[in-house]
Amino acid sequence: MAVTLYVCTTCRAESDPPDGPRAGARLHATLAETLAGEGVRVEPVECLSVCKRPCTVAVSSPGRWTYVYGDLDPASAPAILRDGLSRYTAAPDGLVPWRERPEAFRKGVIARIPPFSA
Amino acid sequence: MAVTLYVCTTCRAESDPPDGPRAGARLHATLAETLAGEGVRVEPVECLSVCKRPCTVAVSSPGRWTYVYGDLDPASAPAILRDGLSRYTAAPDGLVPWRERPEAFRKGVIARIPPFSA
Repeated sequence: MAVTLYVCTTCRAESDPPDGPRAGARLHATLAETLAGEGVRVEPVECLSVCKRPCTVAVSSPGRWTYVYGDLDPASAPAILRDGLSRYTAAPDGLVPWRERPEAFRKGVIARIPPFSA
Repeated sequence: MAVTLYVCTTCRAESDPPDGPRAGARLHATLAETLAGEGVRVEPVECLSVCKRPCTVAVSSPGRWTYVYGDLDPASAPAILRDGLSRYTAAPDGLVPWRERPEAFRKGVIARIPPFSA
């Protein structure tokens, strides 16, 4: 299956304290814990270059489209991602019908990239 | 080398005539011609989900970071992409120092995704 979820640990929320962990780092810690054992590899990334729409993640898998999502909140993101990733994983090419996508995926999509064909 | 340039053919510019080819389709046609023989595979894609910042492309290569760029103009894009892609190709991981990137790449970056590690 080999689904990888990249989580930007550099993303900063407006409410982040100057000396505290950033929203992106908190999101990564939360997702690494909540998605453990669900077949998703959660990887921290220093910047996905979507700085204006924190928090940001990217989901990728061989043979599937890659998606980048922004505007995620560390508190609600785990449930959204568990739902969205299970649908993504169930689709051989990663393309989930629009109406079946979590609302946060529909509104927060930043970009999508086709599966790489050698 | 195997660098793929995905070009969104659905991107529409404000100045596009309702019944004419879209800016994205024109950009694809131009790039397929101007980048022929430069070791870049130019592929049309129906929507990269960056609809608010036309025209949009994505560049991908095994072992390299993937980049998505928007705000490209079909007229100036070929020279920008020839320059930017030669720098991208010269970098083993696709990471080009900020100051060496074309200005349109610095301003137009939509997202970047790490190379996929199996």
